[in-house]
Amino acid sequence: MGQAVSVRANTDPTEAVAEGRRRVVIESIWPQVDGGRFPIKRVTGDAITVEADAFGDGHDELAVRLVHRAPDGTISETPMEALGNDRWRGELSVDGLGRHGYRVAAWIDRFATWRGDFEKRVAADQDVSVDLQIGAQLAEGAAARAAADGAAGDGRRLNELASELRGEDGGSGSGGVRAALGEELAGLMARHPDRSRETVSEPELEVVVDPPLARFSSWYELFPRSTSTEAGRHGTFADVIARLDYVADLGFDVLYLPPIHPIGERYRKGPNNVTTATPSDPGVPWAIGAAAGGHDAIHPELGTVDDFRALVAAAAERGIRLALDIAFQASPDHPYVDDHRDWFRSRPDGTVQYAENPPKKYQDIYPFDFETADWRELWLELRRVMRLWMDLGVRIFRVDNPHTKPFAFWEWLIADLKATDPDVLFLSEAFTRPKVMYRLAKLGFSQSYTYFTWRNTKDELTDYFLELNRPPLSEFFRPNAWPNTPDILHEYLQHGGRPAFIARHVLAATLAASYGIYGPAFELGEATPRDPGTEEYLDSEKYQLRRWDLDAPHSLAPLIRTVNRVRREHPALQSNERLAFHSIDDEQLIAYSKQSADGRDTILTIVNLDPHHARTGTLELPLAELGIDPERPFEVHDLLADTTLLWHGPRNVVELDPSRLPAAILDVRPSVRSEADFDQFM
Amino acid sequence: MGQAVSVRANTDPTEAVAEGRRRVVIESIWPQVDGGRFPIKRVTGDAITVEADAFGDGHDELAVRLVHRAPDGTISETPMEALGNDRWRGELSVDGLGRHGYRVAAWIDRFATWRGDFEKRVAADQDVSVDLQIGAQLAEGAAARAAADGAAGDGRRLNELASELRGEDGGSGSGGVRAALGEELAGLMARHPDRSRETVSEPELEVVVDPPLARFSSWYELFPRSTSTEAGRHGTFADVIARLDYVADLGFDVLYLPPIHPIGERYRKGPNNVTTATPSDPGVPWAIGAAAGGHDAIHPELGTVDDFRALVAAAAERGIRLALDIAFQASPDHPYVDDHRDWFRSRPDGTVQYAENPPKKYQDIYPFDFETADWRELWLELRRVMRLWMDLGVRIFRVDNPHTKPFAFWEWLIADLKATDPDVLFLSEAFTRPKVMYRLAKLGFSQSYTYFTWRNTKDELTDYFLELNRPPLSEFFRPNAWPNTPDILHEYLQHGGRPAFIARHVLAATLAASYGIYGPAFELGEATPRDPGTEEYLDSEKYQLRRWDLDAPHSLAPLIRTVNRVRREHPALQSNERLAFHSIDDEQLIAYSKQSADGRDTILTIVNLDPHHARTGTLELPLAELGIDPERPFEVHDLLADTTLLWHGPRNVVELDPSRLPAAILDVRPSVRSEADFDQFM
Repeated sequence: MGQAVSVRANTDPTEAVAEGRRRVVIESIWPQVDGGRFPIKRVTGDAITVEADAFGDGHDELAVRLVHRAPDGTISETPMEALGNDRWRGELSVDGLGRHGYRVAAWIDRFATWRGDFEKRVAADQDVSVDLQIGAQLAEGAAARAAADGAAGDGRRLNELASELRGEDGGSGSGGVRAALGEELAGLMARHPDRSRETVSEPELEVVVDPPLARFSSWYELFPRSTSTEAGRHGTFADVIARLDYVADLGFDVLYLPPIHPIGERYRKGPNNVTTATPSDPGVPWAIGAAAGGHDAIHPELGTVDDFRALVAAAAERGIRLALDIAFQASPDHPYVDDHRDWFRSRPDGTVQYAENPPKKYQDIYPFDFETADWRELWLELRRVMRLWMDLGVRIFRVDNPHTKPFAFWEWLIADLKATDPDVLFLSEAFTRPKVMYRLAKLGFSQSYTYFTWRNTKDELTDYFLELNRPPLSEFFRPNAWPNTPDILHEYLQHGGRPAFIARHVLAATLAASYGIYGPAFELGEATPRDPGTEEYLDSEKYQLRRWDLDAPHSLAPLIRTVNRVRREHPALQSNERLAFHSIDDEQLIAYSKQSADGRDTILTIVNLDPHHARTGTLELPLAELGIDPERPFEVHDLLADTTLLWHGPRNVVELDPSRLPAAILDVRPSVRSEADFDQFM
Repeated sequence: MGQAVSVRANTDPTEAVAEGRRRVVIESIWPQVDGGRFPIKRVTGDAITVEADAFGDGHDELAVRLVHRAPDGTISETPMEALGNDRWRGELSVDGLGRHGYRVAAWIDRFATWRGDFEKRVAADQDVSVDLQIGAQLAEGAAARAAADGAAGDGRRLNELASELRGEDGGSGSGGVRAALGEELAGLMARHPDRSRETVSEPELEVVVDPPLARFSSWYELFPRSTSTEAGRHGTFADVIARLDYVADLGFDVLYLPPIHPIGERYRKGPNNVTTATPSDPGVPWAIGAAAGGHDAIHPELGTVDDFRALVAAAAERGIRLALDIAFQASPDHPYVDDHRDWFRSRPDGTVQYAENPPKKYQDIYPFDFETADWRELWLELRRVMRLWMDLGVRIFRVDNPHTKPFAFWEWLIADLKATDPDVLFLSEAFTRPKVMYRLAKLGFSQSYTYFTWRNTKDELTDYFLELNRPPLSEFFRPNAWPNTPDILHEYLQHGGRPAFIARHVLAATLAASYGIYGPAFELGEATPRDPGTEEYLDSEKYQLRRWDLDAPHSLAPLIRTVNRVRREHPALQSNERLAFHSIDDEQLIAYSKQSADGRDTILTIVNLDPHHARTGTLELPLAELGIDPERPFEVHDLLADTTLLWHGPRNVVELDPSRLPAAILDVRPSVRSEADFDQFM
């Protein structure tokens, strides 16, 4: 065309693209949460399968690696394998506690590309003399890299192989072809790849690795002040120590205590939440702070710091971790109210703003004003409180109402505490809207309370647990299911009697790898509400001391002990990864299975949700998915009733009578004969 | 507790969190592609519905805005409305071409929170004197902001209302309550919100706004050299101008020309791809470059630059845009081979590396080496080529094999060109793996060729178009469906005769808002392959001149004209947003509908995929979803046969006989009587 055409001045490529020769792109890495904004969660010993799309322009071969950064900064790499359709998969093991990182790195593998083409040329009987020279150039490039990396031996050998390719060894052309296609050259080339234009995925994705207890835990909540064996005497840490054998015998491994701090006196609530307390009323443990101290102090009637240390130690001896309640709010008598008046909102009349849910007023509680100009000092003080209890041996915190404090505060606090103490765990007690609950889990809470308490029908339970097991939610939200709490006595328990308690216990303990009960109210079947229509307990321990008859003949302790033993013995119940619901043709019967990651342990749970009537239904199992040969009989061992049945085929009839036992926890295995055959083929 | 406990030194909150009082979080903004890494695509005049999760800690009210940045930098905001479950929705209109940005901004609305609580207090007959003072403080804060913003009137009025709330106007308390709950105060407060701690979503999401042609276009491809009306004479641009009325009459609005540059002589291919060309063979247009010039030159036998300008102008007069083929590769005779030898890969024997797909060799084509050290100069030169043709009036480029050039190159090039010329469009001719095709669309190509040509069964077509309409793919990938191309004569067309051509044309034109045909081969039913089992045409225009008898009686021109008219008249066919497949109980009958965004235009297409036999099936329509009253008869106007039927209810029997017409394009409307009723309720 000849004539000059004016080209408008515009961006230079280098302004936008530092290296235009980086040809591989990486997309859709899994697992991840919000594009890497938040870490995924795992426990020590887990293997994480990572997948990614990686591809370049054209048709060159790729090399793809999974890059793992351990918390100590150590970098290790494993090759990723091609799954087809430009998808790649690799695996990394996370053994150490803390924040690990992972990325995908990929580059054009010029040698692999050349070698593949070369094979086709040889197969087509083409003249490959020039191609051998190209291969030799590639080998010489690798030799130089090897030498620079200090692998002098590899470098020398690569140069020798390059000479063979060039035919400079005096050998025949076929010797060059053999060397070109040999495994030795391929291995050496793979050891010294040209990664100068590799693509590394951004941002680094992170995984928080917790102790196994973060995933699999059995919680027991009790009020220490109600552990006294003498009527009217305030319980002490020594009484709690005396109760530890009972808790351990039930099979729990976390003992959660409501706040143990001094309790405010002004606006103190009396029994059943009356606003007129008498001097002998102990008050609500969540109204924290009095003359004796605040969040860093122990209620004088419970004991001393040394008593607390003794409790932590005695629990640990029995395999029990203590979980402390963290409720960041103050009673009007908290030392902060005088010392840090600016941490609370002031009303125009000069008083401190109390908690409200208009028109209701909670004058015994002052919330912190996290919008205070002094927010940095407030955050630092609350962190001091946490570290103080951590230094006394507390490794688990049950955080009260985290959803009423800023998200940024929790994200900072938890990251900060886990930076030095990666074993510390946090349970979020946020009974609020789902997205708020999920955000708290994303930003760092190790476990979360759930809506389980209010999910009572077959559809509700199925939908909810399918939602919780759905990615990416399942990557960061670890449900902890409670049939009751001091605040929630669901009407199902109020009206369902003993079968309702058993059903809810079995559901919690088998649907969720972590669960808890508020006892002894739970095992003793406490079921009377304060008023009709409320979920509050009558004579709740929140407002008064209680004594419990642990030896009552109707106690559910034996059942609970059995269920917790089954949980310990069966890996299937120790994670939520492989939960599947199964068809059973009665609306009050719910059936679901869990499997261990290796598929060797299968637990099938069936619960009759109707506490008043026996129910019969035909259960349909996807036997092949459960690893059962549909052509052979298989064993079903009822771990609660301790009976064994032999079932045939996918459809079997089940009856559950609540007057005997409304639930069955079934260990499903191939029958002995099938198992022998099965082993033979492993 | 008294005793000092050592707190380990750790991060200061301010290191991690600049503003700890920013309490709102924003998540899950839709639409977006890869977290904002790539823009979504729209055309001028579109309204974009944006949704986001936004929530704070606690229970305070939020204000949420959708922030829109126009290409000229103008910022505008619209309120987003709460959908429940912490989801918010807003809408923005994109009128100008270019890259727009959008974000979500949200903050705690203290006044709205206070007002909601205040109403509850008043309803509960509480003393609200202190609350009125709090309200007055909020109003005074807004007054100060109003004054600072230059809204002195608002500021004065807010102060007056604050006085009313305080009861300082000498009025009664009830006057304060009235003012507090009045719309005037609410309106003024909403105009002057406290956004000092607002949260603004990161990163800014972008939308590329193209001309409507980017979404709805009808392409016609022809070889200019075959437009001569005299046997053996090489066609010219003047011949193409003479052909424009024909193309316009068929209803096409894009005329796509294969490369128009000088063609290489060395290794030139002869008819039917033989490697022994005679001097009179014209060569392959994609073997670009000869003594007469390269990518910036015009093939001497086609005409001059002025002839080209005349063609662009003549096309524009007929509402036709010219699309130019951009094939970034060179023949051995391209001037670049001498001038920029370093833009090609050299072989150890000193020759230039030709294209290969081992063991096949394409010695007439030299690919650019995008890994050249001189990549910046190569990129700049290719941009110069593009701008040169843009300056000659080309606004559409059909890019040949973009998947064999680096992704980063295209992303830079397209962004660069569209920065000054946002109306320019790019069609990606990447017939390769799906993720590569999708990546090219993400990084900027306006439209993309598809696998449509190879999707011939009902299941294949259904699955594929559902995949293409699936978010987020539908946000960035605009399919352009072709029943044939110079490289692809599918065996369905080879064996199906005229009914196959009609079926494929109707499918392309109604499944995809953009489609194209390679003519006149298509409308003249050219169906003979070069060899059995190949998709190459016999005597393909790629290698030789052809003359076409446009007046042949068997030409499909009349049908094509009708289909294109229907496309222009029916908004339903001008986007892919509302495509739905419908049940019809014959495996060879496929039925689907499209609706306009406003739901007023519904086109139902039914195609018999069996070119040899009449097929009958019962069609089942979801009438309510299509806006048809299931209780009333409705009209079905066949736009191809020009007949009207009255159908009753969702199930109707359809017969299509390929010997008459294998397809029906039906305009579905409520019957006249129903329509009158319908209008009454609008």
